Amino acid sequence: MSESTTREERYERGRKVLDAIDGTAGTNVIDSLKDISPELGHQVVAWGFGDIYARPALAPRDRQLVTLGMLTALGGCEPQLDVHINAALNVGLTPEQIIEAFLHSAVYCGFPRALNATFAAKKVFAERGLLPLE
Amino acid sequence: MSESTTREERYERGRKVLDAIDGTAGTNVIDSLKDISPELGHQVVAWGFGDIYARPALAPRDRQLVTLGMLTALGGCEPQLDVHINAALNVGLTPEQIIEAFLHSAVYCGFPRALNATFAAKKVFAERGLLPLE
Amino acid sequence: MSESTTREERYERGRKVLDAIDGTAGTNVIDSLKDISPELGHQVVAWGFGDIYARPALAPRDRQLVTLGMLTALGGCEPQLDVHINAALNVGLTPEQIIEAFLHSAVYCGFPRALNATFAAKKVFAERGLLPLE
Amino acid sequence: MSESTTREERYERGRKVLDAIDGTAGTNVIDSLKDISPELGHQVVAWGFGDIYARPALAPRDRQLVTLGMLTALGGCEPQLDVHINAALNVGLTPEQIIEAFLHSAVYCGFPRALNATFAAKKVFAERGLLPLE
Amino acid sequence: MSESTTREERYERGRKVLDAIDGTAGTNVIDSLKDISPELGHQVVAWGFGDIYARPALAPRDRQLVTLGMLTALGGCEPQLDVHINAALNVGLTPEQIIEAFLHSAVYCGFPRALNATFAAKKVFAERGLLPLE
Amino acid sequence: MSESTTREERYERGRKVLDAIDGTAGTNVIDSLKDISPELGHQVVAWGFGDIYARPALAPRDRQLVTLGMLTALGGCEPQLDVHINAALNVGLTPEQIIEAFLHSAVYCGFPRALNATFAAKKVFAERGLLPLE
Repeated sequence: MSESTTREERYERGRKVLDAIDGTAGTNVIDSLKDISPELGHQVVAWGFGDIYARPALAPRDRQLVTLGMLTALGGCEPQLDVHINAALNVGLTPEQIIEAFLHSAVYCGFPRALNATFAAKKVFAERGLLPLE
Repeated sequence: MSESTTREERYERGRKVLDAIDGTAGTNVIDSLKDISPELGHQVVAWGFGDIYARPALAPRDRQLVTLGMLTALGGCEPQLDVHINAALNVGLTPEQIIEAFLHSAVYCGFPRALNATFAAKKVFAERGLLPLE
Repeated sequence: MSESTTREERYERGRKVLDAIDGTAGTNVIDSLKDISPELGHQVVAWGFGDIYARPALAPRDRQLVTLGMLTALGGCEPQLDVHINAALNVGLTPEQIIEAFLHSAVYCGFPRALNATFAAKKVFAERGLLPLE
Repeated sequence: MSESTTREERYERGRKVLDAIDGTAGTNVIDSLKDISPELGHQVVAWGFGDIYARPALAPRDRQLVTLGMLTALGGCEPQLDVHINAALNVGLTPEQIIEAFLHSAVYCGFPRALNATFAAKKVFAERGLLPLE
Repeated sequence: MSESTTREERYERGRKVLDAIDGTAGTNVIDSLKDISPELGHQVVAWGFGDIYARPALAPRDRQLVTLGMLTALGGCEPQLDVHINAALNVGLTPEQIIEAFLHSAVYCGFPRALNATFAAKKVFAERGLLPLE
Repeated sequence: MSESTTREERYERGRKVLDAIDGTAGTNVIDSLKDISPELGHQVVAWGFGDIYARPALAPRDRQLVTLGMLTALGGCEPQLDVHINAALNVGLTPEQIIEAFLHSAVYCGFPRALNATFAAKKVFAERGLLPLE
C-alpha cells in the first residue's frame, strides 16, 4: 500500500518540481489563475508537476525537449513556449540545442510552426541576454 | 414541400438567433466583415445561425457548451472564444460551469489549450464584473 | 487540511466514476494498457476520472457533451469518440442530441470533422441497435 | 429582393454541383448518412455545394486545389482526401499537379501530412489506372 | 549526373524565387532570423523556395492558392498568412479570389479559421489600399 | 565557399543517415513513393535526413525524442509514429523512456493523443518482442 498523502501535500510536492524547472514564469501562471480557476492552477502543479514531471523515468532535460516538440506542433501555444523555453534553459538545454530542435521541427510540422517557435525563442533569449546566437 | 424563402428572409431568421445568443459581440463580427467579405458575414448569420443554431434538437445552452469544447480544442480561436464565452453566459451557463468545462478540457486537450481558454474567460469575466470567481 | 488518501484509494475512486460513465469500453482501454503503460492507465483513472470527472461543478451529461465537441475538433480521435459516444448514451444524452452536436460541429470545425464524428456514431448506434435514427 | 426558393430547390441546386464535381464518391457519402444524419447530408449538399461551391468567384479547379491544401493540413481527413482527389481529377487538375501540391505541402505542414496525402493519392490513382506516374 | 552546386548557389537560386513571390515581406522574415537561427532562414530560402517553389510542375499562382488553404487550416499562422496573402496578390490572384478561397475554407475548416484568415486579408488589403472590396 | 555537390550526392548523404536511424522502415517508405512521388521520396532523404538530421547540433537520440513529441501532438500520424518509435529504439532511447515520453504528452496534448501514441508503441514493441514492459 502506498503512502497516504493529502491534497495539500501533493500540491507542495509539485510546487517544488515546478519551482526547480520553470522558476518565476511558472509561478506567474499559477498566480494569474487564482481569481479565475484556482483548481486549474492546483492541477497543473499537483498533477502535472507532482505526479508526472516528478517521475524519474525521463530526465528533466529530456522532458523539456519533448515538451518543446509538442508545443511547436500544437500551434497557438506561444505563451507556453515562452515558459518552456525558459524551463529548457533552466534544466540544461543549450540555446543552440533549442534552436536546432525548432529547425528540426520544420521537417515534421512545416516552416510556419518552426518559425513561430523560433521567434518565441528569440524573445526569451533577448530577455536573458543570449543574442545574437552565432 | 417546404416553405419558399428568399436569401434576405433566411438572413433575417439567422439574425434574430444571433442577436439572442451573441448580442453585441456577434454584431461586431458581422459589421467588421462588411468591407472585406460581406458574403462570409451573410453565411455566418444565414447558415450558421439561421439553419443550424435555430434547430430545436439541441438547446442553446448545450450548443454553447459543445462550442466551447470545440474552440478550446482547435486552438488559435481566442477571438471566437471571447464571443462564445459571452454567448454562453447569455444563454444560461454559469461562470463556474464554463470554468469547469475548461478544466475538463485539460483531460482531452492538455493544459496549454485549457489555460488559453481559461485566460480568455478571465478577460470576458473581468469585462462583465464577474471576478473573482471564488 | 484535506483528507489523506493513498494512490490506491485515488485509483478506486476514479474507477467507480469510470465504470459508471464508460462501462465496458473504459475497462477495455485500461486493460489494454496493462502490458505497455500501466501508469498511463492509472492516470486516466485516478486523475482523469477520480480528480476531474468526479467534481460536481459540471453534470456527467454536460461533461460528455463538451468532450464530444473536443474529440470532434481534435481529429484523429476515432477510438476515443467510440468510447465517449457510448458514454454519452450511458449518461443520458439521446442519440438525436449526439447527432445534432456533430451537425453543429460543422459550423466550427468544418464538414470533414463533422462527417468523421457522425460515422463514428453510426458504428456505435448500429452496435447498440439504435439505427435508423429517423 | 432575391429569388424565393424552397429547401428542396436549394438541395437540388447543390446536388447538381456535387454530381458534376464529386461524381459517385459524393453520392456515396450522402447515401451513407441517410440512416444516421440525413440533415448533415442535406447541409453538405444544399449549403456546401449549393451555396458555396456554386459561386462563380473561384473556378471549380481552384476550389479543389485549395481544398486539397486544407484537407492535407487538417490531418485525419483521409476519407475526404479520397473524395476530393477524385474530384480534383474530375475538374481538370492533372495527377502531376495534385502530387506536386502534396510535395509543396511539406513546406507548410511537414513531411507526415505530405506523405499521408500522397499515399491517399496513390490509392485513388491506382483505382483509376493512373500509376505509375513517372 | 545532375549539375554540381554549392550551398551558396542553392541559396541564391531560392533567393530569386523568394524575392519574385514574397517581395519585402519575405526578406523581412529572413532578416529577422539572422541573430537567432540563420540556418532556418537558409533552409526556408534554399530548400523551400530553391528546391520546391522553383519546380515548374505547379504555377506560382496555384502554389499560393494551396498555401492559403494550408495556412488557414493549420490555425495560428497569422504571420504567415500576412506574408502569403501579399504573395498571392503578387503572383496574380485577385483580392476577390483570395476572399472567396477563405469563404470556401468555412466548408472544410469551419467559420473560426475562415474568419481569422479573412481578417488577416483585411489587414493586408488595407495596407495596400484595396478596401473596400465590394 | 562551401563544397559543390550534385543532387545525387546529397541524396546519398541523406540515405546513409536514414539507414542508420530508421533502418528497413525508412527504406519501405521511400520505396512505396517510387511510382507516385519519387520527388517526395528524394526530398525526405536528401533534405530531411541529408540536410537536417545530419547536423551535429542535436544528437540523434534527442532528435527522435523531440520527433516523438511532435508526431504525438500532430495527431493522425500513426504510420510515422511506427517508423519513429522504431528509430527511437535504434538510436538508444529505451522502451521505458519512450513510454514515459508518451505519458508526459498527456500533460500537454491530453489523453487521446497520449493513448494513440502509446498504442502505436505497443504494436512496435510487440513486433520487436519487448512486451510486457513491466
